[in-house]
Amino acid sequence: MESRPRRVAVLGSTGSVGSQALDVIRQLPGHFEAVALAAGRNADLLARQVAEVRPKYVFSEVQSPALREAAELAGARFIPTDEMAVAGDIDIVLVATAGAAGLMPTLGALELGRPVAIANKEVLVMAGHLVRRAMLAGGGDMRPVDSEHSAIWQCLWGEEQHEIRRILLTASGGAFRDFDRSQLAAVTAEQALNHPTWKMGAKITIDSATLMNKGMETIEAMWLFGVPMEKVEVVLHRESIVHSLVEFSDGSVKAQLGVPDMRLPIQCALAYPERMPAPPAATLDLAAVGSLHFGKPDMDRFPALRLAMEAGRLGGTYPAVMAAADEVAVERFMVHEIGFLDIPVIIEQVLAAHESTDDPDLETVLAADADARRQARAVKVGVPA
Amino acid sequence: MESRPRRVAVLGSTGSVGSQALDVIRQLPGHFEAVALAAGRNADLLARQVAEVRPKYVFSEVQSPALREAAELAGARFIPTDEMAVAGDIDIVLVATAGAAGLMPTLGALELGRPVAIANKEVLVMAGHLVRRAMLAGGGDMRPVDSEHSAIWQCLWGEEQHEIRRILLTASGGAFRDFDRSQLAAVTAEQALNHPTWKMGAKITIDSATLMNKGMETIEAMWLFGVPMEKVEVVLHRESIVHSLVEFSDGSVKAQLGVPDMRLPIQCALAYPERMPAPPAATLDLAAVGSLHFGKPDMDRFPALRLAMEAGRLGGTYPAVMAAADEVAVERFMVHEIGFLDIPVIIEQVLAAHESTDDPDLETVLAADADARRQARAVKVGVPA
Repeated sequence: MESRPRRVAVLGSTGSVGSQALDVIRQLPGHFEAVALAAGRNADLLARQVAEVRPKYVFSEVQSPALREAAELAGARFIPTDEMAVAGDIDIVLVATAGAAGLMPTLGALELGRPVAIANKEVLVMAGHLVRRAMLAGGGDMRPVDSEHSAIWQCLWGEEQHEIRRILLTASGGAFRDFDRSQLAAVTAEQALNHPTWKMGAKITIDSATLMNKGMETIEAMWLFGVPMEKVEVVLHRESIVHSLVEFSDGSVKAQLGVPDMRLPIQCALAYPERMPAPPAATLDLAAVGSLHFGKPDMDRFPALRLAMEAGRLGGTYPAVMAAADEVAVERFMVHEIGFLDIPVIIEQVLAAHESTDDPDLETVLAADADARRQARAVKVGVPA
Repeated sequence: MESRPRRVAVLGSTGSVGSQALDVIRQLPGHFEAVALAAGRNADLLARQVAEVRPKYVFSEVQSPALREAAELAGARFIPTDEMAVAGDIDIVLVATAGAAGLMPTLGALELGRPVAIANKEVLVMAGHLVRRAMLAGGGDMRPVDSEHSAIWQCLWGEEQHEIRRILLTASGGAFRDFDRSQLAAVTAEQALNHPTWKMGAKITIDSATLMNKGMETIEAMWLFGVPMEKVEVVLHRESIVHSLVEFSDGSVKAQLGVPDMRLPIQCALAYPERMPAPPAATLDLAAVGSLHFGKPDMDRFPALRLAMEAGRLGGTYPAVMAAADEVAVERFMVHEIGFLDIPVIIEQVLAAHESTDDPDLETVLAADADARRQARAVKVGVPA
């Protein structure tokens, strides 16, 4: 055991991952301490978290009297997230913010050689090449927090990167895995927001249903583990028990399994290289599960997966453009402006019109992102069924 | 890559594991070289192996003119296996001999700090405490060769031993996993010798059908990985794709999977800490496999598993006595002297009559073994159905 708790900056503390990270930290008080909390717009919840956790640093995109009062009582100082990430009294940064807001803190911490527990998709999808470069330059390490990448990461402990033959990302298949195209065409936002296993936000739930979420995970895997897209495959696995697998050069395959509980990969990322006691009810009973099923994803019914893997393979600004177009398309779907099957249609059109830049800097990525959003808003598709 | 091939002593080169080890060595000529071959009674096959491999050292329990001629042509010198294991120009010893013959070479190599790839059950079942002590004293390492223990070993790379919560040994369930007791009572030796997935010798095939083989594997797991029997469980898994699993203190479970091909774990043990290119057709296609099933073993229908785990838990001379009684009982079953269900009855009676010695030395183990064989021959059971 360490002599003092590991000091964690929780960026995105009011979101699903952030609040579960605070659960983990609360349950292991001798091991972890949340010394910085940052949130977006949920100032009320942040105020309650600050009152409980008493961090040294706090950040919020919006202010509220309750938050100001809680911060004052706790003696917490308001500083921006990119300053939090590089503050001298932080041991590990959990980046669980949504969107591009996670990018600067991630780059800053990695360049400083600091570990980053990364739960933000956009950072790696938009600018994975910059993040990986910062990690290699600074000597920091990225510890994935979502269950699939945590599984791959754990399978790679004690292994050599050059011996990876394939990364096998498992996919539950989304809420509509058994729907045919005509059923998919009729899907509504309300239906899509009912994912069977994980409780998540609206955007990621729709992305899970289109398999865009899995597609973005293939791009994340490239940058987290330093492999080309040719080595990444998606395997359907409806039970969400096998969180992902890695095949090595000698044909041996390792898998990581567990009950679906986000606190496990969060804890794993924070505790590395140790393991710590599990949250209650985190024991997998394989005999009770009985059977595990595997299959191939259907790229015809779920073209977003194909589009994402292709964007990842092509690189440049394509992944950023794809993610931006997806975000707009999902927004348009949520307000019933387009149908479920129009989401990949919009992404494909925006990607087709895009001229990519190789090895783009951040400014170029952000410009491509903004342009893709404009394009995605302008694409005309048929009204939903 | 290393500058010179790793020099391997193959003890038991004419058996199933030994000859597959020579396949592996043949396919990776820059990496491995078989410099010592030892066999039991198959002098003809050994002669052909010597002619092909041209080892420096050779051993055979029986002699033949062909073997003497092959050895002379190859310039191979006849030396005993315990001398082979400690010879100065050996890098790793593969112990694939059957029975107690593997014990002295294993102890000798481990005491010298030399890696031992271990494919011999009896060595660990009879004298696991002595083997582990030799390993810890000499600083050598044991690398399991059978698929289950290789899986566990691989899952433990990059992990800490004290973080093992459970070892989950998978069992195909044997040839008669779906038989009820009356069907089991009627099983003949000829039926039992038809195992679905792995091709093995007669003794291990019967042991697989009674689940005694799996029971012995639980004892092997104790000594290979330094865990008490309380941390070892058996999970039925009929597809033999998941070779075994380890659950860690944080609830995370790792599994190793692969096609059923003994050459993979053999190569893994010889190549460690590297991985090397796979033998052809060693790629697992999970989507094609489709589903994997898990269940609990039935200790009532397969009491040998319970007996073995109990003997392992009690320790002392019990495991040696159990293994010896099993060997005699299987022989009696093979010659139609007893029925299939009498095998565990004999083992249980011999164990019940035994007075164990704690922390026995080798002499005590061998005396208990000999005594158990006499007892097992004398047990009277009903004639087979």
